[in-house]
Parts: sequence; structure tokens; C-alpha cells
Amino acid sequence: GYGRTGIQYFENTDAQDAAGLNETQIISRLRMNLDASTSSEQGVDFGARFRLQWDQNSATRGNQGELNAGKLYVTSSGLTVEVGNVDTAFDSVNLLYGSELGSYDRDLVRRGAFFAYDSDRLAGQFVQADVDVDGDGDVDGDDLEELSTYNGIAATYAIEGLKARVSYIDPDQSGLTSDDEELGFSVDYTWNERLELAAAYVMDGGAIEDNDIFFIGARYAVMENARIGLNYLNASNDSAADVGDTITLYGDYTLADGLTNIEAYVANNNDDDNETDNAFGIGVNYDLGGARLGASLQRGNDERVTADMGVRFDF
Amino acid sequence: GYGRTGIQYFENTDAQDAAGLNETQIISRLRMNLDASTSSEQGVDFGARFRLQWDQNSATRGNQGELNAGKLYVTSSGLTVEVGNVDTAFDSVNLLYGSELGSYDRDLVRRGAFFAYDSDRLAGQFVQADVDVDGDGDVDGDDLEELSTYNGIAATYAIEGLKARVSYIDPDQSGLTSDDEELGFSVDYTWNERLELAAAYVMDGGAIEDNDIFFIGARYAVMENARIGLNYLNASNDSAADVGDTITLYGDYTLADGLTNIEAYVANNNDDDNETDNAFGIGVNYDLGGARLGASLQRGNDERVTADMGVRFDF
Amino acid sequence: GYGRTGIQYFENTDAQDAAGLNETQIISRLRMNLDASTSSEQGVDFGARFRLQWDQNSATRGNQGELNAGKLYVTSSGLTVEVGNVDTAFDSVNLLYGSELGSYDRDLVRRGAFFAYDSDRLAGQFVQADVDVDGDGDVDGDDLEELSTYNGIAATYAIEGLKARVSYIDPDQSGLTSDDEELGFSVDYTWNERLELAAAYVMDGGAIEDNDIFFIGARYAVMENARIGLNYLNASNDSAADVGDTITLYGDYTLADGLTNIEAYVANNNDDDNETDNAFGIGVNYDLGGARLGASLQRGNDERVTADMGVRFDF
Repeated sequence: GYGRTGIQYFENTDAQDAAGLNETQIISRLRMNLDASTSSEQGVDFGARFRLQWDQNSATRGNQGELNAGKLYVTSSGLTVEVGNVDTAFDSVNLLYGSELGSYDRDLVRRGAFFAYDSDRLAGQFVQADVDVDGDGDVDGDDLEELSTYNGIAATYAIEGLKARVSYIDPDQSGLTSDDEELGFSVDYTWNERLELAAAYVMDGGAIEDNDIFFIGARYAVMENARIGLNYLNASNDSAADVGDTITLYGDYTLADGLTNIEAYVANNNDDDNETDNAFGIGVNYDLGGARLGASLQRGNDERVTADMGVRFDF
Repeated sequence: GYGRTGIQYFENTDAQDAAGLNETQIISRLRMNLDASTSSEQGVDFGARFRLQWDQNSATRGNQGELNAGKLYVTSSGLTVEVGNVDTAFDSVNLLYGSELGSYDRDLVRRGAFFAYDSDRLAGQFVQADVDVDGDGDVDGDDLEELSTYNGIAATYAIEGLKARVSYIDPDQSGLTSDDEELGFSVDYTWNERLELAAAYVMDGGAIEDNDIFFIGARYAVMENARIGLNYLNASNDSAADVGDTITLYGDYTLADGLTNIEAYVANNNDDDNETDNAFGIGVNYDLGGARLGASLQRGNDERVTADMGVRFDF
Repeated sequence: GYGRTGIQYFENTDAQDAAGLNETQIISRLRMNLDASTSSEQGVDFGARFRLQWDQNSATRGNQGELNAGKLYVTSSGLTVEVGNVDTAFDSVNLLYGSELGSYDRDLVRRGAFFAYDSDRLAGQFVQADVDVDGDGDVDGDDLEELSTYNGIAATYAIEGLKARVSYIDPDQSGLTSDDEELGFSVDYTWNERLELAAAYVMDGGAIEDNDIFFIGARYAVMENARIGLNYLNASNDSAADVGDTITLYGDYTLADGLTNIEAYVANNNDDDNETDNAFGIGVNYDLGGARLGASLQRGNDERVTADMGVRFDF
């Protein structure tokens, strides 16, 4: 897991200014992964993970650390199959988050809606069952339980520089509420530690009907200490979660000290809701060995500015 | 702890069919026990346990992993005393769950209501205190707290093949709501790794008045690789939790490969609510070494069929 | 962490007697600290802590173990800086709790209100935001989130026998509700393992306006096995949390066996709400090596008696 803390600034709207909302706050995160695993005599590995996470100022995880839903997995000969709260194919693809900046690893690039490994309790999968849940022949108070029937299945195959993934998320296994399921694919390839290629596709992302998203990205190390990447994400799908198309150009450069890394991106999104089509940001990270200091300054498609400065350490 | 996942099938009632409830769902569990202990200079061991558990599709633990209430214990010279969320005498007796099948270790044998070690938050022990809780002389808003005053005490004595247990559960120590407490006893004995005998008795099981349950069971290894058991459970007590008497015949047989274990049971229950008095099931487990594959097919006293298939691994 | 269990007796008020509240209950606690840390190449240590705690019969932690909010810290050359759910300067000062008795480490000395490291979820920091939280230009249902924006910063400097601390707690970083912040200082010094001195001051303790509290204490080992201490706490501040002035005389004496420790205190408080100005108590602890047995008998400013007996073990 890791810990991070620092200061984040978010430019207020006029309404927020009027209400007196502070623009600068201290935001921290503490994440601990609890992993357990065992190996069978045939060389198959079985494992599982819980996550404890606290996000300062978060509505759902700010008050106390929260346990998430579990993930179980089986690994053998490069193939990993996961069940439960899985890492989805689309969310896990390389380069998708390549433009993130600073110690908080955040950017203002619009990517649309899709499922990911959930650090929180599973949300939006509650079913108010009005059927005979307990099977006693009557539909009564005992049957009005909230069911959480989210399930994910994901498979990853890794060989040399290639990774291929497929995932299937059914937010309601009971079939009582949601009809749509998310199906995702992704593949990425790294050549000679120099060229990275990635592609992903998700159908009914986030179990939202017709929310199909396509992603393709590439990054090349033009020098030993400099990389340039270009991402294209197509979420123009006329669904409820349509966020248009996004083209992101990003790169990073490591100074001669070998510790300071400068990052930047500019992203063009053609969604009609935008105040401006171009979002951009610049960031820096300084490696402490085991920890890093970082900062970023960004402006989003809503023409508002945000900045952060902080420290992150991994354990 | 352990992880398990797989598929469970439950035959729908007509009402469930009409509502469109899926009969087959993926059900997983992830359990991690957090144990801590210390030893005094006199050779007395002090210990404690928390449990983290996630049960996919469960109403109370499906949404995220849940911490349970703690258990504290002291062990010395074969005697263990537990306090808090304890393992009760009745629930812990050998053979009581001897008829469980498959990787999910479940059966459809009716056993009535009694307290057990609770993997969940303590339920049903909330007291709406309308007395002077904070002792300031007034009864006001500060006194309307929910109190959770469940307490259990259990003692186990183990010597050679013999185990004797006694437990006492007071679901409301404050005395403000519940008047009934559960008192349980059990003893089991294993002779020569061949013959197992067990008996248990609980008074006011689950703190339900007059809910007295008596259990006696025996299992004998008729061959090196085959065991047959017979259980008798008397819960005909005219209480609110009366489930009649149950006689269960069960056994298991290990194939010559030493890895495949076939299990089966038939249970006769005389409760008036039953559609049929006989429940039965057959199951199989295949040992992977550290993990096992299993399956079962069962029909309960409600004449509905259930089946499961899955994998379980311990860590 | 540690575990403890035993019996506590609280004398009822007449109203509690009439309601039938039990005066004697079993009270247990199980605490586990989850620590993680890493060191940078410059010799700076970064760390973090979660706590799991279950308090039997507690309204907030009685039902199940609870995770608290996280604490992150950085340590280098005797200076420790904490962020998040921090140990506050006032609460951490030596001797402040020097009069606590028995295995439960409790007394009936009035100390007023101030923030401390919170074993529970952060309370009282929820903001019903009626401003544009999500920044979409509208104030709608999505903006009515509960925010938990508590933040603490604390610094401790330790050198030889000296410790100096400063802490700053802002219960609402958003600025939308609470205006007051707590600022605290403390310093303590130990000379020759014989003399202990401590002083602390907190302004707007517990973020309650004008709730300024001053504390000074000293303890001296008059013999190898006997210590006497005197504390003075001034909370006469005309704030909503005014509890008057308290002078506490306390001491402890270890018997010749080196294992049995007798403790006692008498505390005089001049608050008008008191039934009596003097609270006093006597306690004993017996060291088992790794665990200890303890008991206490006390009478508080409300003229009611409380007693406890139990065992505590650390791991």
C-alpha cells in the first residue's frame, strides 16, 4: 500500500465562493492491501485481497478507513483469473492514465464511465428484493433485504512484453434490477523497454446501455530520459455517459540528476458541455528513494484551475 | 482464513420465477482471521481475534468486507476461557455439521436456532436506552444511544481425545430489554481415530425462551477410507424456534486415488411446516493440496433443489 | 495493540434503578494497530497507522470492530510531523493521565474537552454541503454529500529527556460550518528517571470557542519503589465546556515482590455542577509478565461509586 498527503487547491465557482468554501485543503490517503495466498501441489497459485483505505475529505472514505469487497484469484503459467471485485480490462490497460501528474497522480482528462477495482464498498448494486428471498412461500418483511449481487470475472494473460485482458461485470447477478453488463477487452505491448502500445474496448461501460468506449495509445522513449505519448479515447456513443472524443499528448523528462521528473499533458475533448475543449497541466516529481515529492498545476475543460503539492511513500 | 468461489443454483419458487430472479449466481467468500497473542511468564497464553469477512451476495457482508466483534481468550493446561464474541458450546461440538457437502460445506439439515461465533456485526442486541446513560441527572438526547451489550463467556477443556465445553450468552447485559440467556454444554470424544461420539445441549438457544435443543451423534470409520455417521437432534420444544426432531444418516468414501472424496446424507425431520420430511444430498471433493474442488446436489424439506460447484483454498 | 476484559460496576442513579439497568457488566476491549513504514535514502522515515478497535458495550464500537481514520507521519532527527488523525499536543503530555488506576486505566478526574487521536470514526465533522460540490454549475442532489473534512497537524520534538509538542486541529477544512480550530502546546521533561515535569496549554479545545485549558504537573520518585505526583488543571474559562479547576494528588507504591503496584489519587474540582468537590480512588495491579491483573474502587464528583476488576495483555 501507500500513504500520501499534501495540499490541493481547487478554484471555486461563484456559488462556492459565495458560500465561503475554502479552495485549499489538506488531502491525504492511506491504503493498505491485505493479501493472502497459497499454492497447490500442481503449481497453481490461489490468492485473495482486501484493501483498507482512508481518503481524507472523501464523502465515502473520509470518516474512517473502509474495507472494500474482496477479490479472489487463481494464477498458473501466466494466466490469472479473478472473481469478485476484479481489476477490469479497460481500467487496467497501460498508458490510459499515462498523463497523470505529481504526487497525487491526477489529471483532468475526461475518460467516461466504466467499472474498475473498487477501493470502496460496492455501490449501486443494491436490490430491494420484493420476491420470496427466504423461500418460505410468503413475501413479507424478511424478504425486503438489500442484496448486493455485484460480480466480476476477469482474465489476464501475460507473456514477454504482452498483456491481454478480458473482463465481464454483472452489477446485479440476481437479474431483478439491472439488465446491462459490462464487457471489456484490452491488450498492451512493450517493445525493448522503449515503445509502449495499448488498446482497449469496453461495451456498456459501467453497465450503462450503449456506453461503448474505445481507447488506443502509444508512448515512445525518444531519449534515455524522455518519453512522449499520444492517446485517443472515443466515448462518443450517444449513451447517458457520452463524454465525446479525447486526444491527449503527454510526456515526461528526467533531469540530469536522475531524480527530478518533469511531466506535462494537453488534452483536447470535443464534448458539448465543455467551457473549453483543451485541458492541460504540468507537474514534477522528485525521487527521495522510497518516497517522492510532487506538485502539479492544471486547468480543466471547465476552465477552472487546480494545483497540488505533496509527498507520497510506498510500503 | 480462506477464500472460496463458484456457482450456486437455487430452484426458484413460482413467485421468484415470476419476478425473474436468476437461479444461478456466483457466490464467493473471503475470510481473514487477525490473531494476536502473548504469553505470561507463568505459561498462560492470552490471545484475541478479529475476523474480516466478505460474502458475495450476502445482505450484511456482500457490499464490503466486515469486521466482526472481538474475541479474547486465555489458555492454560488444556483449559481455554473465552470472552466476548465466543465460540459457543453447542455450535462447536464435533459431528453437528458432519453432513455438510462440497466446497461450500453446506447442507439442508434443520438444526434450530442458537448462538455461534459471529462473523458479522453483533445483531439484535441494540437497546434504545431511555435511562440516564451519561449519569448527568437528566434523561435527554445524549441518553438515547444505541447500546450493544452482547456478551459471551465460554470454557473448553481438552485432554487426549476428549473435549468438554460450556458457554453462556447474555445478549443484553444491561438488562433493559432481553431477559433470556443461552446456556449450552457439549462434549465429544474420539477413540483411536476411528470412533467419534458427540453430545450437546442448549437451553434457551438464541436467547429464545424454552428453545431447548438436544443433540447426540456418532461416526465410525468402517474402513480406512469410509465413514458412516448418525446424528439425532431434538428441537421439539414448543418454543418460537421449534423445528422438530431430525435424524441424519451420513457418510463419506475416499476413492483409491486418495484425493477424491464422495459424501452423502439423508435427513428426516418431523416438523409440520415441511413439504416433505426427507432432505438428502450427495457431494464430492477433489483435493488439490492446499485447495480443493467440490460440488454438491441437494434437495431440502421444501422440495426445492440446490446445487453448487466451486473451489476453496486455505491460507 | 492490546486486549483487556473484566467486570465494571457503576452505581445506578435512582432513574436507572427504576428502569432496571444492571450495575455490573462485562466490558472488554480489543485493539490492533496496523502500522506500515518506509525509509528514504536520506534517512527520513515515513509511516502510517490504522487502528482496529472493538469496545464491548460501546455505542460506537460495541457492535463490531471499527477502523479509525488514518494517521501519516514523517520522522527525522528527533522531529516527527503527523497529518490526519493525529496525537494532539495536550492529550499526549506526560502525567496528564498519571492518576489512572487498575487494569482499565481509568479514573474520575475531570479534564475538560479537547481533541485526541481518535480510535473511532471521525465524529462531528460532517458538513451538509449546499454548494456546488461537483462543480457542474448546478446545486442539486449530487452536491448534498456529507463531507468529512477533519484535519490535524502535529509536530513532536524529542531530545534526551525533553519532549515538546505542538498541534493544530481544524475540524472543518471546508470552512462551511465550524469556524474554530484547536491549537495546543505541551512540553515534558524527565530528570534522572526520578523527577517528571509537564506543562500543556490548549486554545479553543475541541474547537469550542474560548475553551482554553492549562495544565501543569510534577511527579517525584521519593523512593526506588514509590512515586508521588501533583497535577493542576485550569479549565475555568467560561466556555460551553468549562469544568472548573482540578488539583490531583496521586501516587503509587510497588510492594517488595516487585510485581504488585498499589495506586491511589484524590482530586479536588471546584465546578458548580459537582455533588461533591472531591473524587478519589484506589487501585492495584499485579504484573504477570506480558499481562497484568488489576482492580480499582473509585468515587466521582457525582458521589457515585464505580469499581472494576480485570486482566489486560499487550501484544
